[in-house]
Amino acid sequence: MTDETLAGRLCAVGTPGLSTALRRRGYHDVVVEGVRPLTPGQRFAGPARTLRFVPFRPDLFAERGGGFNPQKQAFDTVGAGEVLVIEARGLPETGTLGDILALRARHRGAAGVVSDGGVRDTEAVVATGLPVFANGSHPSVLGRRHVPWETGVVIACGGVAVAPGDFVVADADGVLVVPAAIVTEVLAEAERDEGRDAWIAARVAEGEALDGLFPMNEAWRACYEAEPQRT
Amino acid sequence: MTDETLAGRLCAVGTPGLSTALRRRGYHDVVVEGVRPLTPGQRFAGPARTLRFVPFRPDLFAERGGGFNPQKQAFDTVGAGEVLVIEARGLPETGTLGDILALRARHRGAAGVVSDGGVRDTEAVVATGLPVFANGSHPSVLGRRHVPWETGVVIACGGVAVAPGDFVVADADGVLVVPAAIVTEVLAEAERDEGRDAWIAARVAEGEALDGLFPMNEAWRACYEAEPQRT
Amino acid sequence: MTDETLAGRLCAVGTPGLSTALRRRGYHDVVVEGVRPLTPGQRFAGPARTLRFVPFRPDLFAERGGGFNPQKQAFDTVGAGEVLVIEARGLPETGTLGDILALRARHRGAAGVVSDGGVRDTEAVVATGLPVFANGSHPSVLGRRHVPWETGVVIACGGVAVAPGDFVVADADGVLVVPAAIVTEVLAEAERDEGRDAWIAARVAEGEALDGLFPMNEAWRACYEAEPQRT
Amino acid sequence: MTDETLAGRLCAVGTPGLSTALRRRGYHDVVVEGVRPLTPGQRFAGPARTLRFVPFRPDLFAERGGGFNPQKQAFDTVGAGEVLVIEARGLPETGTLGDILALRARHRGAAGVVSDGGVRDTEAVVATGLPVFANGSHPSVLGRRHVPWETGVVIACGGVAVAPGDFVVADADGVLVVPAAIVTEVLAEAERDEGRDAWIAARVAEGEALDGLFPMNEAWRACYEAEPQRT
Amino acid sequence: MTDETLAGRLCAVGTPGLSTALRRRGYHDVVVEGVRPLTPGQRFAGPARTLRFVPFRPDLFAERGGGFNPQKQAFDTVGAGEVLVIEARGLPETGTLGDILALRARHRGAAGVVSDGGVRDTEAVVATGLPVFANGSHPSVLGRRHVPWETGVVIACGGVAVAPGDFVVADADGVLVVPAAIVTEVLAEAERDEGRDAWIAARVAEGEALDGLFPMNEAWRACYEAEPQRT
Amino acid sequence: MTDETLAGRLCAVGTPGLSTALRRRGYHDVVVEGVRPLTPGQRFAGPARTLRFVPFRPDLFAERGGGFNPQKQAFDTVGAGEVLVIEARGLPETGTLGDILALRARHRGAAGVVSDGGVRDTEAVVATGLPVFANGSHPSVLGRRHVPWETGVVIACGGVAVAPGDFVVADADGVLVVPAAIVTEVLAEAERDEGRDAWIAARVAEGEALDGLFPMNEAWRACYEAEPQRT
Repeated sequence: MTDETLAGRLCAVGTPGLSTALRRRGYHDVVVEGVRPLTPGQRFAGPARTLRFVPFRPDLFAERGGGFNPQKQAFDTVGAGEVLVIEARGLPETGTLGDILALRARHRGAAGVVSDGGVRDTEAVVATGLPVFANGSHPSVLGRRHVPWETGVVIACGGVAVAPGDFVVADADGVLVVPAAIVTEVLAEAERDEGRDAWIAARVAEGEALDGLFPMNEAWRACYEAEPQRT
Repeated sequence: MTDETLAGRLCAVGTPGLSTALRRRGYHDVVVEGVRPLTPGQRFAGPARTLRFVPFRPDLFAERGGGFNPQKQAFDTVGAGEVLVIEARGLPETGTLGDILALRARHRGAAGVVSDGGVRDTEAVVATGLPVFANGSHPSVLGRRHVPWETGVVIACGGVAVAPGDFVVADADGVLVVPAAIVTEVLAEAERDEGRDAWIAARVAEGEALDGLFPMNEAWRACYEAEPQRT
Repeated sequence: MTDETLAGRLCAVGTPGLSTALRRRGYHDVVVEGVRPLTPGQRFAGPARTLRFVPFRPDLFAERGGGFNPQKQAFDTVGAGEVLVIEARGLPETGTLGDILALRARHRGAAGVVSDGGVRDTEAVVATGLPVFANGSHPSVLGRRHVPWETGVVIACGGVAVAPGDFVVADADGVLVVPAAIVTEVLAEAERDEGRDAWIAARVAEGEALDGLFPMNEAWRACYEAEPQRT
Repeated sequence: MTDETLAGRLCAVGTPGLSTALRRRGYHDVVVEGVRPLTPGQRFAGPARTLRFVPFRPDLFAERGGGFNPQKQAFDTVGAGEVLVIEARGLPETGTLGDILALRARHRGAAGVVSDGGVRDTEAVVATGLPVFANGSHPSVLGRRHVPWETGVVIACGGVAVAPGDFVVADADGVLVVPAAIVTEVLAEAERDEGRDAWIAARVAEGEALDGLFPMNEAWRACYEAEPQRT
Repeated sequence: MTDETLAGRLCAVGTPGLSTALRRRGYHDVVVEGVRPLTPGQRFAGPARTLRFVPFRPDLFAERGGGFNPQKQAFDTVGAGEVLVIEARGLPETGTLGDILALRARHRGAAGVVSDGGVRDTEAVVATGLPVFANGSHPSVLGRRHVPWETGVVIACGGVAVAPGDFVVADADGVLVVPAAIVTEVLAEAERDEGRDAWIAARVAEGEALDGLFPMNEAWRACYEAEPQRT
Repeated sequence: MTDETLAGRLCAVGTPGLSTALRRRGYHDVVVEGVRPLTPGQRFAGPARTLRFVPFRPDLFAERGGGFNPQKQAFDTVGAGEVLVIEARGLPETGTLGDILALRARHRGAAGVVSDGGVRDTEAVVATGLPVFANGSHPSVLGRRHVPWETGVVIACGGVAVAPGDFVVADADGVLVVPAAIVTEVLAEAERDEGRDAWIAARVAEGEALDGLFPMNEAWRACYEAEPQRT
């Protein structure tokens, strides 16, 4: 399965089902807390590229903050279908990307950006069409709180560890991180569960009660399994 | 007055006027703090059904978390016009209802749901048309933080005590709890005040100054009371 | 330059560029934190009128809370093009303005309102067309938490000092305070920077890489300065 | 009654009883939240002197931050038995007084200091013997977050309004503000209640059950009132 | 094993070892967050008695707040060796027990009290000798925020579910909840682990390096198991 | 100057004076926020060794959490006089060091430990005599929230960037980070300022007023400079 197909199926099945399959494997803390889409309704999935900021300090900023710094390198080289994930220590009080960087990521074909910091030039970023999940908008430049430090390392974003290559899935329920090593099995399980839940939802929409149906007792399960598409 | 009529009038008069009438009676803390509508513009009112969650613990979840648990019982039996209110200890970091439960509540004719926890399957819940006020969206299942423990007891939701049968009113300003014993008098007072304020607002829209008008001095009051519909 | 022209240009250039120009002058903390527009897309600029609330106390409320109090005086006399800024100590849990006051401010021609407290009568306030940035909606009256104490003094709003006459600029990125004494030079510098950044953005949209372009190396700078409109 | 006698009796009766007497009069929010004594066991009472800080801004600091600024004026002139109360917007992240100011206040005979900001030179401040309630210690100078703005106005400290001349009482339970106009009656009521509660406590210490005793039923009340010192 | 023996051994082994043994069984969230001992160095253990408060509301307080209310019932009847655990929704801003109640609990022989709310009459409570873990001190009466609602139910305290009869262990590291059904096996495992860790600590105190010793490799393990008291 | 001499002088001059000298050079954010000493009165200084934790995830913990992991490596090899600084993302809700690690660091001659996470085995850690500044105590093992990821990199601790080799100074006012490149000049300036402030404090203790003395006017300055030890 190509990354593109995988991303499409991860997007389609959605974060709730994936979250449940991850929880069964002991992954209880894999949701990026506190971020929201700049534009409601955005959803994407793809492998992670990571970018780590450290707190602003004049000497460290002099060392790595100027010129073609790690932040600009990350946006300049992000691959098609990739998701750029930024560690900004949950601070909404400064921008962590702006319109020029968003344009570049869009041009490169990035699937999206997730930052647990703020967005600058919000309207222009929205206009690029690049999906962004962040924890707010702010007019301040990066240097108010951060030094762009390094790329390609394991980071913390919204309380979750993100490693380069992890799959990141973002939709209306939030942003989820799926380790690459288990993404296929987690996806398959989530699709199976979501299929079952969609069938239950259809019954409830027809007026059936939850009792015995959700979760299914033996009678309902027999009924469910008897349907052609399930066998 | 039927509950339906009452709910309609509570909705129409809105939470600000009701809040003032409650404050005059010593009710200073009757607004559910921190919740927002899933879809802007939603408003509803109705008597409360309550559902209490306690923090997740494996043994307690084994006892009451599976099968037709108190959460599912509450959604399965909520009455037409009722508002289901959930105590989730203000935690946004897990879902407290999802699409199947929302479908069922909608089918039962519930007026709405208020939860000081998160919503799962957000887009599907919105699609059911059931109005929901919560403190965020999250892909995680209930068991990440909660055990659905019991129904029909006095709970705390968003910092407010809610008893079964209290009237709950939700609109763009927030969610308000009105004890059933005083709902009629509170409603009447709020309607009278809102009528007066609407009259003042009309004068201000015409260009009158606030000084002497808001609050009304004797001259303005005489003018107000002289209008046919007020006598 | 009239205040109106100035306001128009401040609005057009936007808070990010102004924020950078302020930062160069040592103004690191001039963004009102935690406020959002009631209606997405609102933007305005203008000189500040200030209003200070202190915590509710029965005796102090008796002294200044009733009648034509400082809050009502401020809304009743706000000037055309002015921005009313309210110190509400960051508390979302009560209203700090409602529909009647908003109508009056709108009638007076106020450019907008910024409050680090809540808004009451949210839908009606939106309907007046007056742009408002606040930190939430709430049905409670002012007196739940505040006494309207005085106008025309230096206040704290969203963590920022605001003096009467400061220029306040609000857009999708946030609300920024610009001291009147430096507003002209800050504006000029922001316009120049934004012009340059827009030119860079256009190059990036055409597919140019960030490396060497953002920030510009000598080659790109020569190219930029060679354009007719830049010379 | 002299202020000194009054202060001594306020200290002796303590904040819990005073808080109850204030609550009966509608004063629900008169405790300075979030402050702690630098040295456990400190207690004091006295009339308030107030000092208001506003957020740091270079121009405002240039105007009032240097030289013999309002902060230094307040400490230099605080009266014997007075309590200096500082509005620091609840920020622990900078000092709001240091050892030199504490020495001066001690020399002037101040009863104590209450600040909802930090303390600098903690050990030296403790060594002066001046009782201080604050919300932490911090090595940074005032100018990191504040401009010392004015004295002698109504301020907010720890969420409470404090007016010059209010009585401030501080002990192990916290810091309480008592309006001067009602301090005598509130004190008398608190002393009466505390006398009764001490009597009840003595009974409980002897092994009596709470049922019927706390609160007292008629039998216990008769017993209490029969004691010589109560009649 | 009597409850008293059990409590003694739980106290002796301490919360860290018990926490690890609980974690191995899937109990990740069994520490009461945010509470501290009134007096440093206090430690206790015992079975839980529970008390649940709901948010203050005039009508509910009238129903259950006065007289011999559930709070007073709980303190009046707590058993020797028991730990009273109070759900106060994590609010430090009001007292949840005072000196009279503490005296009574002490007289009854309670092992201690855990409240995720405040303590009133702090010095007098300390003087009773009753160990109390709470989240602060406050002069306000219970009714500022709470109605004492019921006893003997499963509650949430400091983010943890506590059921009547659970074992509660409190020491300098915090307060831990151990379900009664597994307390014996958890205790045994913790004692075994702590014995091993004490042996490792002794080696480290002698100058051994951590590498290979913590955790133990085969050589060190052989050495450890060869000691007489381990075989 | 040896590191030991430097550390001694940094300790002696204290964090307030150093903080001011750093602020003059543009270092506004170099105080580790939110940490406190385990034992009041502890103070130390020394060059930093860094340790970075990332959020717990089963796969990452399997990779680096077991055996002789980076945390144990750091404690096993910390040098005499060094300060171990730990990035724990400000979470108090789990231990980040315990008694065995503290014993080892003490044996190695570490100057102290600074962690923006919790401490486990608090009493035993205190007993080792190793000075520790952390943000609380907690019985849980590291793995509840963290994977010990790497050492020797720039980290964020309490909101501040810390690079290996930075000087860390901890006393009753807090924990300060001084870049090695400027530590000598910052120290000299702080010593000079503290000498002057001590002289002023002595005058204030003698009864002099602040006006003209703090800051010094020309007359006082002449007096100060005329003293033998100042020339």
